[in-house]
Amino acid sequence: MTLKSRQEYLDGIRSLNTELYACGKRVPDLWEHECVRPAMNAIGLVYELSEKADPDCFFTTHSPFIDGKVNRFLHIHQTRDDLRQRFRLSRFMVHRHGACIGARCVSTGALNSLFSTTFDIDSEMGTNYHGRFIDYVKYVQANDLAVSGAMMDVKGDRSRSPHQQADPDLYLHVVEKRDDGIIVRGAKASISGAAISHEIVVLPCTAMSAEDEAYAVSFAVPSDTRGVIHVAEAPAPNMRRLVGQEMDYGNAEYGVHGSTHVIFDDVFIPWERVFMCGEYGFAGELVARFANLQRLNTTGCKTGHRDLLMGAAAVIAEYNGAGTARHIREKLTDLYFESEKSFGCGLAAIYTGEKTRAGCFMPDPLYINIAKLQAVNAIWQGNYTVSDIAGGLVCTPPTADDLQHEKIGTLLDKYLKGREEVPTEHRIRMLRLVEYLTGQGSVVPIESTHGAGSPQAQKIVIQQSLMEKLDRFKKDAKIMAGIKED
Amino acid sequence: MTLKSRQEYLDGIRSLNTELYACGKRVPDLWEHECVRPAMNAIGLVYELSEKADPDCFFTTHSPFIDGKVNRFLHIHQTRDDLRQRFRLSRFMVHRHGACIGARCVSTGALNSLFSTTFDIDSEMGTNYHGRFIDYVKYVQANDLAVSGAMMDVKGDRSRSPHQQADPDLYLHVVEKRDDGIIVRGAKASISGAAISHEIVVLPCTAMSAEDEAYAVSFAVPSDTRGVIHVAEAPAPNMRRLVGQEMDYGNAEYGVHGSTHVIFDDVFIPWERVFMCGEYGFAGELVARFANLQRLNTTGCKTGHRDLLMGAAAVIAEYNGAGTARHIREKLTDLYFESEKSFGCGLAAIYTGEKTRAGCFMPDPLYINIAKLQAVNAIWQGNYTVSDIAGGLVCTPPTADDLQHEKIGTLLDKYLKGREEVPTEHRIRMLRLVEYLTGQGSVVPIESTHGAGSPQAQKIVIQQSLMEKLDRFKKDAKIMAGIKED
Amino acid sequence: MTLKSRQEYLDGIRSLNTELYACGKRVPDLWEHECVRPAMNAIGLVYELSEKADPDCFFTTHSPFIDGKVNRFLHIHQTRDDLRQRFRLSRFMVHRHGACIGARCVSTGALNSLFSTTFDIDSEMGTNYHGRFIDYVKYVQANDLAVSGAMMDVKGDRSRSPHQQADPDLYLHVVEKRDDGIIVRGAKASISGAAISHEIVVLPCTAMSAEDEAYAVSFAVPSDTRGVIHVAEAPAPNMRRLVGQEMDYGNAEYGVHGSTHVIFDDVFIPWERVFMCGEYGFAGELVARFANLQRLNTTGCKTGHRDLLMGAAAVIAEYNGAGTARHIREKLTDLYFESEKSFGCGLAAIYTGEKTRAGCFMPDPLYINIAKLQAVNAIWQGNYTVSDIAGGLVCTPPTADDLQHEKIGTLLDKYLKGREEVPTEHRIRMLRLVEYLTGQGSVVPIESTHGAGSPQAQKIVIQQSLMEKLDRFKKDAKIMAGIKED
Amino acid sequence: MTLKSRQEYLDGIRSLNTELYACGKRVPDLWEHECVRPAMNAIGLVYELSEKADPDCFFTTHSPFIDGKVNRFLHIHQTRDDLRQRFRLSRFMVHRHGACIGARCVSTGALNSLFSTTFDIDSEMGTNYHGRFIDYVKYVQANDLAVSGAMMDVKGDRSRSPHQQADPDLYLHVVEKRDDGIIVRGAKASISGAAISHEIVVLPCTAMSAEDEAYAVSFAVPSDTRGVIHVAEAPAPNMRRLVGQEMDYGNAEYGVHGSTHVIFDDVFIPWERVFMCGEYGFAGELVARFANLQRLNTTGCKTGHRDLLMGAAAVIAEYNGAGTARHIREKLTDLYFESEKSFGCGLAAIYTGEKTRAGCFMPDPLYINIAKLQAVNAIWQGNYTVSDIAGGLVCTPPTADDLQHEKIGTLLDKYLKGREEVPTEHRIRMLRLVEYLTGQGSVVPIESTHGAGSPQAQKIVIQQSLMEKLDRFKKDAKIMAGIKED
Repeated sequence: MTLKSRQEYLDGIRSLNTELYACGKRVPDLWEHECVRPAMNAIGLVYELSEKADPDCFFTTHSPFIDGKVNRFLHIHQTRDDLRQRFRLSRFMVHRHGACIGARCVSTGALNSLFSTTFDIDSEMGTNYHGRFIDYVKYVQANDLAVSGAMMDVKGDRSRSPHQQADPDLYLHVVEKRDDGIIVRGAKASISGAAISHEIVVLPCTAMSAEDEAYAVSFAVPSDTRGVIHVAEAPAPNMRRLVGQEMDYGNAEYGVHGSTHVIFDDVFIPWERVFMCGEYGFAGELVARFANLQRLNTTGCKTGHRDLLMGAAAVIAEYNGAGTARHIREKLTDLYFESEKSFGCGLAAIYTGEKTRAGCFMPDPLYINIAKLQAVNAIWQGNYTVSDIAGGLVCTPPTADDLQHEKIGTLLDKYLKGREEVPTEHRIRMLRLVEYLTGQGSVVPIESTHGAGSPQAQKIVIQQSLMEKLDRFKKDAKIMAGIKED
Repeated sequence: MTLKSRQEYLDGIRSLNTELYACGKRVPDLWEHECVRPAMNAIGLVYELSEKADPDCFFTTHSPFIDGKVNRFLHIHQTRDDLRQRFRLSRFMVHRHGACIGARCVSTGALNSLFSTTFDIDSEMGTNYHGRFIDYVKYVQANDLAVSGAMMDVKGDRSRSPHQQADPDLYLHVVEKRDDGIIVRGAKASISGAAISHEIVVLPCTAMSAEDEAYAVSFAVPSDTRGVIHVAEAPAPNMRRLVGQEMDYGNAEYGVHGSTHVIFDDVFIPWERVFMCGEYGFAGELVARFANLQRLNTTGCKTGHRDLLMGAAAVIAEYNGAGTARHIREKLTDLYFESEKSFGCGLAAIYTGEKTRAGCFMPDPLYINIAKLQAVNAIWQGNYTVSDIAGGLVCTPPTADDLQHEKIGTLLDKYLKGREEVPTEHRIRMLRLVEYLTGQGSVVPIESTHGAGSPQAQKIVIQQSLMEKLDRFKKDAKIMAGIKED
Repeated sequence: MTLKSRQEYLDGIRSLNTELYACGKRVPDLWEHECVRPAMNAIGLVYELSEKADPDCFFTTHSPFIDGKVNRFLHIHQTRDDLRQRFRLSRFMVHRHGACIGARCVSTGALNSLFSTTFDIDSEMGTNYHGRFIDYVKYVQANDLAVSGAMMDVKGDRSRSPHQQADPDLYLHVVEKRDDGIIVRGAKASISGAAISHEIVVLPCTAMSAEDEAYAVSFAVPSDTRGVIHVAEAPAPNMRRLVGQEMDYGNAEYGVHGSTHVIFDDVFIPWERVFMCGEYGFAGELVARFANLQRLNTTGCKTGHRDLLMGAAAVIAEYNGAGTARHIREKLTDLYFESEKSFGCGLAAIYTGEKTRAGCFMPDPLYINIAKLQAVNAIWQGNYTVSDIAGGLVCTPPTADDLQHEKIGTLLDKYLKGREEVPTEHRIRMLRLVEYLTGQGSVVPIESTHGAGSPQAQKIVIQQSLMEKLDRFKKDAKIMAGIKED
Repeated sequence: MTLKSRQEYLDGIRSLNTELYACGKRVPDLWEHECVRPAMNAIGLVYELSEKADPDCFFTTHSPFIDGKVNRFLHIHQTRDDLRQRFRLSRFMVHRHGACIGARCVSTGALNSLFSTTFDIDSEMGTNYHGRFIDYVKYVQANDLAVSGAMMDVKGDRSRSPHQQADPDLYLHVVEKRDDGIIVRGAKASISGAAISHEIVVLPCTAMSAEDEAYAVSFAVPSDTRGVIHVAEAPAPNMRRLVGQEMDYGNAEYGVHGSTHVIFDDVFIPWERVFMCGEYGFAGELVARFANLQRLNTTGCKTGHRDLLMGAAAVIAEYNGAGTARHIREKLTDLYFESEKSFGCGLAAIYTGEKTRAGCFMPDPLYINIAKLQAVNAIWQGNYTVSDIAGGLVCTPPTADDLQHEKIGTLLDKYLKGREEVPTEHRIRMLRLVEYLTGQGSVVPIESTHGAGSPQAQKIVIQQSLMEKLDRFKKDAKIMAGIKED
């Protein structure tokens, strides 16, 4: 019932039989792979911080399900303040890791959305998913497991619904129901931390109709289950780790996103881990709840990214001798205005959020979608602004190998110096961080745009909200204009 | 101890000896003036709605000072939820009046900022303003008075502080201290509702140094006190009211802002109505508190304006036969996104607001300034978007006189028809409302920009907030980049 | 064959029998009406400047049709440089009048679009419009007439084409063909300068199909022809002119737009003035040419407006004592960037424009539509920026009557002073100009948005242009990605 | 006197003794290095296309200096149309290479700016640089050499001018003057194509005062001269080329920028190659001319990039099954609007450009700076928009090694399929191109921002232009407002 230590987490993940491929090769030991270790390190950091004394109940809190201390990422939100603490935690953690902790972060969305939706399914359909799911919550809480969430299917032709695809496997579905469980087939795309978590919670990714019944399936599965195959992402900055040195990476310790495509090649799931199976009418609401919680996490997380971005910009401006330039301060203020608008709307979503019938708190759909869309806008504005501030050298610093070279090392140290008192190495390290943070060296821009749902997804929610209110707005306008309709 | 009725308010104001000039003439009866009556009507509406049964305590609440029901506009905020109700009330009221209720609205800022600051002055300086001010609060609450707030001085040369002005009267100041009170001289610019309120609370408008001591003065004064001279604003839409008919005004019933320049021509204030006199060190904080509360009110109010604006746009699009055009729906969605970002940050300011030492709640300075600045951005975007949607006719509809003309009336009715089933008059009325709301026929754009402080004022607060955090952001960035100093 | 003088123009217009209604009353003498005279004054200014020695051929040029000097507004563009001079002229004139010279400006679009399209119709249909139209060009050039252009129909239900309207008259059409001419019925909306021009050239306003044949009609008609009925616009700032003094108007001398709704109540047009009658297949191209030329004029004109706007902002900032504030300079620079992007694209449209088969030059459709859309964006940004800079007083200055009042006049002069050395009256005049220019006191914002076509109209052209190129862009992309298709 | 072939260029560069380091190692054969060959390939393409029959004189033209055919990149602009052809060529070439041809492109700026400035120096100072420079022009034209231009110094502390730096070598300067020539020391940062050109033309990078005299130096030098040391950039996408396969690179054939830091370690320059030596008063104008020409090139080039970007977005949308989504078409239209505003202002800069005293044409400073700043804005908007359209998979596609793997290859081919008829490989290739173009896999965003001058540099020019006009704008405004100053 105690929390895991960092070392316990790392040892545990290494001891699994996870089937992970990276750049065309099976990865025998996750910790030894240059493009996996940093992602494990970030999760290790969460364990490390949570394990410490935490008097403010920031990293941990009390769970009524196990009547004991749990990591906040595994918590079912009992109060509005639970949502707020979780939101702050997303922002805080990025200040420390600057990357992604999806193997823990996503559990918030997966667990709370299923907690409330299994309750609703049972209430309406007379099923018994909710009790089963509570058992699962107790299991992961008691063992302090890293739980990832897999929602996004590979989706094939986006103009077609699941059952309309040419290949029926392009959305994950049940291919066989047995007495002891189900067999599922399909693939989930770009799942954060799936290969370095203990458990993966799988959910459908879209609202469904009766014809999609086989696709309305949700379950939990250990990440190293037979038939579960992970293929690692391979963005350019990861490839750099195969040929360079620590100094070249921008964020050497944590700076890998760590998502995998997860293929379910006829995987068996026992009934006690199945939380939805055919109740297609609930898929839409389950997806919406998961998405809204993930958008809350992402809003916090991206604010943390922009905090780092503004910090890096201010440092490199100083190193360049432009630390007091007024236009730089104003550009940062503009960015901060955009950034805090997003975080502020996240707070508003919590403040106006509501308790579900099952008892857990959810953020308000309108404000959390506004917050997430604004988060993406601000990330891109930030990338532009900070690239602008940092200067052209941000994409052409020499490598550590260059700097250590017998002949050119000294010359580069001499010529790439900024302000006299700043070591050239410091300047180059900060440039590499800017390169990393602005997406020249990370997946941040894309992940910001699409993680937790593409911008269009948020726009749809926002538009729906407007459509609901527009009749009232119109009525008010007519009264104002003195128009009297029979 | 009961609330005033609408009629009591109207009769009361008419019976005062308020010295108001409009277009170069003394106004003998406020209610009879075309450019004053609509503003009184809006305040009357507040009285009317508050007087009714109000089970949700939306318009009214319980005041501990008089141990009885008070109008929310006169309330000292006891809880966070008081702030939230007040914020919602600003938005709600605009749906009904579409104009300005400054003669009540501003009392929130004036009363709460003085409540907390008089407490602080007394604590530090050993003065006795706070008790005196509580007596005043009891007086206005018990009598349900309309209280306006006058902060903005005329300011003369903006590059100079109060005592540096060529004419010492360009900021309001104490010209004589007597046993029974003080004599003040100066002028406050563009004060919402000052001439149609019972009382005016006067505050300084900027932070001050020792040399500005005579300018650090705050007091309350009945609006018809001898020496208090009001000069009405005269925007073009008001002038239309002197020559046209009800149908031409867009918002005939309420659509006048109603601000006046208030000149204090050596006015006597008895000591029991003086709440600051020379304590220049507290002027800055008093201004900040007043401003933040006014920015909260304004954020709510401007959201209400944009709600009306979106409603009017949707109606006129329908009247034009373009109600189902997809680009119109998308433009309105974009506007809504901008609008709710502002309101959301207002909610965030309340959610993260704090209790002062004196016991009243204040919104968070960062988020309320972000909210207000975004409110202005969204108003201008809204004016553009809705002018775009409504069509060019918005600035060229014929007048009521044209429509009633023997010969051209019939022709105009025929030719200015939109969709078959919509009366031409309805279409023209809605166009007039758009004209009014987008500022072609109102002071909204300017008042949005500058009411409760100019955009630059908000940017300064936002920038200060960033400056406070930037060192931490920078430190995080250095750690991330692997930079070890010393 | 000589150019008209200002006085000849004014006397000539006054002597016509134009049937103009304003605010429900027939206007007996145009020059005597407060809301008509300023518009005539602006046209008078064009005559005045053109009449003077003009060695650079800026206002006038040589017409091959009459082999003599003509005003540029009546010119058929013989060279690319003719387009450029005309474009510059639009911008230049606004610096002088700050309002609208539609009664001359629009002739450029009307004459050049009909010159080229009548040629094309004759070439394809064997008709004889072109020679007839050249005779008309000679007539207006030789007599130096003010020619307005009327394209926009009132349009009724916008979701329906002309022949689908419930009332067939909602687009202007031929109701009878006779031996000596045609009878037309319908109404054109918001026609700039129609009542103060000598001649109105009428064109259809949309592409048409065979069923709309009766609507495909173009002709010229003297503005005081029997059955032609004008109804004046009545925006709020015009109404101010009925009650105020010169100082209150912002732009007293010229600041009235002067558009009218023009009703054609069964008007007879002789065949020699008919330039299209039933050739529906050419309506679309005629509209496009007229629109593109008008967008060129408008792009130039709105740049002139923004020049004035920046000037006014800089002056009022100085008057306020904020003339050296860096943020003001930067805001003006941002506005200038947006403004010149529009003018620059107008220049690009001329540079890449082409000669029609008939021999006159036309601007490039893509760039002129980009220029006009950007012009509108920049106008709204300008209104916001300059309202921001000018300060809240821009919507609350006292009237001339206030300033002349025995008692409050002195007080207002004292208290509304800005920098010591600037007379209060100067400051108030400049505030009124800002009020006028930002649309609080003019129709500029709306007219900017919709004059010469609504933003959506420009977006359509831009989108079409992209669609034409997209296949090539896609092909390039595939080659780049190494994709080999069959 | 004939143009070089692609093979002659490649063989020639390989045969030089260029001292290039990449990732800490001397590069023995440029063509064999994975991160150099693509850049040579792009230059090779220019030679290949120019060599072909070119009847339109697009790639080549006639030079009066050698009285023969020259590549446009080496041309001294004799006419306005030369500027236009050069501008179009920048855009066109990017459609083919999608990367950078700096080893040829920059020669336009270097040669034309020195051509005009050497003329001006001689005129004023009585020197003889111009004739010497014409000899150099003849030499490079006659031999069809690739000429890069090196302006940007490493600059050290940006708050200090050249002579104020702690290390005097942080701007390139003359350390010794000899009878036969000069010795120079310093370093130029991020010079496009320097290592793969035959010649480097060096210019100062800022306006200078008398104390900076030694820094006011310009010359030409073969790229493999003793003491000239090149250090290659090493952005993440280049590193990928050291570990992956062709399919992984997005733009395998050309997609490397190819800039180097160029260190001048006491390099001897003979007098016949020195074009400025101490004439500090001309440094500012030389820099401005070079910058304006480079901004013209960049404006064209970035428009070409956005053309590719829109093409790639449209293809990937089709592959995803979203090819007909209306919001995608509208987003692309918005991007196109921003893109063509930049190109249009480039055209305006040519149209309003002027001939220098020396006889070569230069673009207008205002419009070319507006064009370049808008180019950067549009690039970032494009990156956001196209990342949005392409979907989250853009940062997580599997590698070629993954796709060829015995077990997971088939699974990935199955699961990463989009529309049925599109091979999975095509979809992944297009995603890699989007990754490359949006800067996840290239230096485009940063290079767009800073190449040819940082945004702030353009803002300064724009602001200066406004300041020159503002007095006139202000005067007009005063006249309009009826203000009469003595």
